[in-house]
Amino acid sequence: MDNGNGGDHRPGRVLVVGGTHGNERNGLWLLDQWRQHPGQLHRHGLALELVVGNPVAAQANRRYVDRDLNRSFRAELLSDPDNQELEVLRARQLLARHGPAGNKPCLVAIDLHSTTAAMGNSLVLYNRRPASLALAAVLQRRLGLPIYLHESDSCQSGYLGACWPCALVIEVGPVAQGLVNGRICQQSQIAVETALDALAQAREGPFALGSALLVHGHLRSMDLPRHGDGSPAGLVHPSLQDRDWRPLGAGDPLFLAGDGTTTAFSPENGDGSGTLWPVFINEAAYGEKGIALSLTRREMVPVAAGWAPSLTELARRLERDPP
Amino acid sequence: MDNGNGGDHRPGRVLVVGGTHGNERNGLWLLDQWRQHPGQLHRHGLALELVVGNPVAAQANRRYVDRDLNRSFRAELLSDPDNQELEVLRARQLLARHGPAGNKPCLVAIDLHSTTAAMGNSLVLYNRRPASLALAAVLQRRLGLPIYLHESDSCQSGYLGACWPCALVIEVGPVAQGLVNGRICQQSQIAVETALDALAQAREGPFALGSALLVHGHLRSMDLPRHGDGSPAGLVHPSLQDRDWRPLGAGDPLFLAGDGTTTAFSPENGDGSGTLWPVFINEAAYGEKGIALSLTRREMVPVAAGWAPSLTELARRLERDPP
Repeated sequence: MDNGNGGDHRPGRVLVVGGTHGNERNGLWLLDQWRQHPGQLHRHGLALELVVGNPVAAQANRRYVDRDLNRSFRAELLSDPDNQELEVLRARQLLARHGPAGNKPCLVAIDLHSTTAAMGNSLVLYNRRPASLALAAVLQRRLGLPIYLHESDSCQSGYLGACWPCALVIEVGPVAQGLVNGRICQQSQIAVETALDALAQAREGPFALGSALLVHGHLRSMDLPRHGDGSPAGLVHPSLQDRDWRPLGAGDPLFLAGDGTTTAFSPENGDGSGTLWPVFINEAAYGEKGIALSLTRREMVPVAAGWAPSLTELARRLERDPP
Repeated sequence: MDNGNGGDHRPGRVLVVGGTHGNERNGLWLLDQWRQHPGQLHRHGLALELVVGNPVAAQANRRYVDRDLNRSFRAELLSDPDNQELEVLRARQLLARHGPAGNKPCLVAIDLHSTTAAMGNSLVLYNRRPASLALAAVLQRRLGLPIYLHESDSCQSGYLGACWPCALVIEVGPVAQGLVNGRICQQSQIAVETALDALAQAREGPFALGSALLVHGHLRSMDLPRHGDGSPAGLVHPSLQDRDWRPLGAGDPLFLAGDGTTTAFSPENGDGSGTLWPVFINEAAYGEKGIALSLTRREMVPVAAGWAPSLTELARRLERDPP
């Protein structure tokens, strides 16, 4: 499913979503505040749609009700009339309302997430679309945010952002589920405002992107060691905890078993050569997905000539906030 | 409800409870490991009962099902035959099995908790019983653990520990709910082993307690500012977040409203004079209780002559682990 923007010249807004996961409360808090005090968000004149991703799950303070909304934007789910799961219905509704071809179309989606992992203030990209890369490059250039490029994992797909022509996930942690933390909110807000500022600048014409984007490209995920009955036989090694975005080499401690033995990291054949960089270390919501951490490879992606014009073309179609 | 040990000379064991709150997973993890690998816990020859506090809630990864188990050990609940709430039933069952007058009586209760607040490795005491104070004094002397003395709050009572002649809560954070964190587990285990070591030493006779115990005595709790409909109108100020056990004075930032205004701390008349020390700042589970933080007063409690003999008397009744 790729709603590209090729050939489409309709105007649209910027979609800002919080609570795609109902127990990630910081984005929900920000949406509430921005609605009550619009002046608290520097919009740079852009018209926004502030939307709670999964209101039913948010009400229940749960990640989701039937299935993870941020894995539900898959063509085979969206097009299956027999699928009436709450999150699939919600995904269809969000697209009908705010998709690029929706009633109140949005051209850019900014999705606010938080994590129990020590990811800091970071970005997640789902593919290498030029406009998204350009927007991420501005945020990295201005704020130094690390980028997790999550592509080519058939086990993990159906992300909300994949359905808009330009999309960013702002992922901030560590913070417990169900908790509003002022610093996490501040970090999220800075990233949103910088993205809006970048869009406002992009519509004016040429803008600086630097020469390369530093991304951490998804390689594979690793599960905890498990007993025959599926229960964990070890935990993330204490010396690896909170070391997101730091190098992990052969022989480094990975898991600690209940009997005190340490499992050291050992790259697989498919990992290729070079150092790997773990992310989402011990994210509470990923236990059920069998993910204790994900491994990435660090990559300098040269900025292509088409990135900035692609973002400019999109940004020029963005509606202005009514004065 | 006070099951004192006066006049009772029955032997008993040490009760170690994890998962009194079903989404505090670190204690549950430790119990599993100690059952699978008894050698991983230095028991100092003491016979233990390793018990999951709330197995149904643990299975569901929820704090509780019907009501907070750690507020359910209240005489009026336990004695009300019409009350069939899951946690009240469980409280009765735990007392029948492992209470001081139970089938497999326990004399000491060690209750493992974790918190999303930055409490570090700490102890919670519910009253000033000599044996508990003596045990806490050993842990403070050896490990430097801070102590939250939670007494005289009619809004918060019914704690598990209050029903055993000697009880400690080991409270470790910050860690998200639903998450096992190796460092939190290690901190918890050190505290449990030190307590068991202290009990083993106490049964041998006189032992050193120092001259005074430093406690942080509960004064009152504070809620977030709220709108008329009950929704929060502010969050814990970012500069207060994670400052558990540090002084809070008049004028220090307390809450941050959505419009950017800061509410400064202002002591109430009942607070008396002197500095106050906040604890459990922004604990995720306390939102529903209307508690954003609790205020304590720091107090040096002189070690009384009766503390050590009280613990020794109890410790001498502790059963040995079968060889």
